[in-house]
Amino acid sequence: MHDNSPVARWERRTEIPLAVASVVYLAAYATRVLAHGLWHLWLDLCGIAMLVCWAMFAVNYAVHWRLSGQGLRFVRTHLLDTVVLILPLLRPLRVVRLYETVQRRHGEPRLSLHARVIAYAGMSAVLLGFTGALTVYQQERGAPGASMRTFGDAVWWACETLTTVGYGDVVPVTPLGRVIAAGMMACGLALLGAVTGSFSSWLLQVFSREDEGSGDEGRPPGG
Amino acid sequence: MHDNSPVARWERRTEIPLAVASVVYLAAYATRVLAHGLWHLWLDLCGIAMLVCWAMFAVNYAVHWRLSGQGLRFVRTHLLDTVVLILPLLRPLRVVRLYETVQRRHGEPRLSLHARVIAYAGMSAVLLGFTGALTVYQQERGAPGASMRTFGDAVWWACETLTTVGYGDVVPVTPLGRVIAAGMMACGLALLGAVTGSFSSWLLQVFSREDEGSGDEGRPPGG
Amino acid sequence: MHDNSPVARWERRTEIPLAVASVVYLAAYATRVLAHGLWHLWLDLCGIAMLVCWAMFAVNYAVHWRLSGQGLRFVRTHLLDTVVLILPLLRPLRVVRLYETVQRRHGEPRLSLHARVIAYAGMSAVLLGFTGALTVYQQERGAPGASMRTFGDAVWWACETLTTVGYGDVVPVTPLGRVIAAGMMACGLALLGAVTGSFSSWLLQVFSREDEGSGDEGRPPGG
Amino acid sequence: MHDNSPVARWERRTEIPLAVASVVYLAAYATRVLAHGLWHLWLDLCGIAMLVCWAMFAVNYAVHWRLSGQGLRFVRTHLLDTVVLILPLLRPLRVVRLYETVQRRHGEPRLSLHARVIAYAGMSAVLLGFTGALTVYQQERGAPGASMRTFGDAVWWACETLTTVGYGDVVPVTPLGRVIAAGMMACGLALLGAVTGSFSSWLLQVFSREDEGSGDEGRPPGG
Repeated sequence: MHDNSPVARWERRTEIPLAVASVVYLAAYATRVLAHGLWHLWLDLCGIAMLVCWAMFAVNYAVHWRLSGQGLRFVRTHLLDTVVLILPLLRPLRVVRLYETVQRRHGEPRLSLHARVIAYAGMSAVLLGFTGALTVYQQERGAPGASMRTFGDAVWWACETLTTVGYGDVVPVTPLGRVIAAGMMACGLALLGAVTGSFSSWLLQVFSREDEGSGDEGRPPGG
Repeated sequence: MHDNSPVARWERRTEIPLAVASVVYLAAYATRVLAHGLWHLWLDLCGIAMLVCWAMFAVNYAVHWRLSGQGLRFVRTHLLDTVVLILPLLRPLRVVRLYETVQRRHGEPRLSLHARVIAYAGMSAVLLGFTGALTVYQQERGAPGASMRTFGDAVWWACETLTTVGYGDVVPVTPLGRVIAAGMMACGLALLGAVTGSFSSWLLQVFSREDEGSGDEGRPPGG
Repeated sequence: MHDNSPVARWERRTEIPLAVASVVYLAAYATRVLAHGLWHLWLDLCGIAMLVCWAMFAVNYAVHWRLSGQGLRFVRTHLLDTVVLILPLLRPLRVVRLYETVQRRHGEPRLSLHARVIAYAGMSAVLLGFTGALTVYQQERGAPGASMRTFGDAVWWACETLTTVGYGDVVPVTPLGRVIAAGMMACGLALLGAVTGSFSSWLLQVFSREDEGSGDEGRPPGG
Repeated sequence: MHDNSPVARWERRTEIPLAVASVVYLAAYATRVLAHGLWHLWLDLCGIAMLVCWAMFAVNYAVHWRLSGQGLRFVRTHLLDTVVLILPLLRPLRVVRLYETVQRRHGEPRLSLHARVIAYAGMSAVLLGFTGALTVYQQERGAPGASMRTFGDAVWWACETLTTVGYGDVVPVTPLGRVIAAGMMACGLALLGAVTGSFSSWLLQVFSREDEGSGDEGRPPGG
């Protein structure tokens, strides 16, 4: 926690600005996708904001590379960072983690282990769904024979995809939209599996703790 | 269990009337939704019953707030209670819990841990499905292009949604219906995940106990 | 295992005939459903076989009731037996269990715990799927607007329902068909969840055992 | 690990050639399925390659049989090997395992237990999906009323089937295509269940380790 290596110091200093940049990037992207008939200057501003944010990510990646002292192996050992550099829309998923860190510093009472896993995986799934709906909507909009006509349709599609319900009333038809959808399915399955699994464990824990509580004269807990 | 704080005493005294009010609220709502051509007086009675029940929930919430001695923080620390105050249809989910408590007082033999989690999560899922089918049906009824035409369709839709099968033969098309459906998917996924997970653990336990049982000369159970 | 109470002796004596009767019942039912244009005498024979089998189940239920010495409470404490008496098609699910018992007596090497749970839940799911396909097909056959036209369609529908894939190309449309389908979804979800959960635990076990095996000079297992 | 029985020595010697043959078999099959208008000689070469590979599998099976010293029981005790002999397309699933072994010999840092299960089950699912898409596409291509028209459609179908989303926009309609699809659903469900379960356990572990890490003055890990 109080690690003083250059990497740790760099991370402590940059985590807040990078998190802000992640959110700004996502917001600017959403504006560009959703706001069709906007004043051109505004769209250009969004584009510039995205470029600036991406430059920050690139600088951060370069500094990490430099500090690691590794050669080309860095790309392989930090595969996740490399992926996030190429797909900056996935970056806000990290903000979920950061929120937890900040809250802890402020001395807030902590949630139980299961509750935190549920919150973390659930919020990641929501962010992933929103990002996926945005990108797939951008691909599908205007495609011939598309069943996804409004952004509302795209959000509804993301909901039924992440929960694996899959009615099939709204479906991506473009090749790129399908590739993004397949990625979203894989990630969403794992995230919602984590939510479900943790919820199940937590419920079992609650019920078993109650058992111990009701027979509290007999056997002191941990005694 | 024998806590004598004012909150605990208030809860012991109010749990039965509040549970009855929850069920009455749900029944009155169901009557209003399902019984179209009913005598007007009857529909008005249902409306009044719903108002009275909701007033009871509000009083209960206010008393809890008062007894807690907290200011506005109460809204945040008792988030679940606040949500249930705004959406009283979700209240019967608590009755499932109460049923278990009452049964225990009557000295009924208790189910095993896994069986209770399965029963609790399963009954919650059934109640959630029924409530969801009611509210979504109210939204969809008469919408142009709706595939959900009868309440039977709505119940069938709730079944295939909660189990994440999702054939897509019956699908909500109105924005509000889709929002409710998305909430139902998320809750149902967690509840049925708990059922599945507990069933799996329970089956493993049954099979492993049987193994020990077949070698019963060697090692007496619990000896 | 060597319990000599009257109930245990009755069970040991009747388990094989009852298992045979269960399979005969299912086979006769399948013949009646699938073989339309059969010679009438044959269909009547099937009907008689079903009646005889059901009479055996009823006698078994009555003997159990008598031996238990309970009054009407028996119906509630043996709820599963009561359900199986009313829906004898579910009886073959017990045969899966019996097969395991018989195999053990013959001194066959036993499978590991996880493998047995997977085998048991998997075989139950297959039987449930076959039975469900039969009964739903009987309801849907000839219904106006039915998408389930052949028994092959029904089996395909059972596959996609039990695995919760739910394409929606084949869907029950009659009320009774949908009720049976909903029951099948609920049971299938639990059974396949058990298969999945056990497979996951088993895979983790295999991989973790391999870890211990590769460092076998260091730390003897269980030493 | 350093087992010197004839079986172990045979396995050590043949694992690399057999893995290569598995991949060659899959590649040759994919070429035959996907490359319609190819020069005939090329297609014939693929067919010959498939035959040669399959001969290698048969020889390997025969040697194992001989070395085991078992009679016809071998077919039953090595059921998986027998299945793989008949369906050689499933063989590359073993290569996933081999890759891990080779990596270990080269002294690569090993992944954690959960990460390895995720990687193994995930890669198996990808291979299974690709193989399934190939074989189902071969059946469906040109069938009347087929919704699977290109290989892209087949891959998209495999994605939505393995994740159990099942939109139903692309669906097999031929009997053989549906049989293969049902097999793929069953295997895919188990594999992705393993991925989900392991991911969930791993996330719980990461979060719980972090808890211990934050109070690191109190209790040294493993001390």
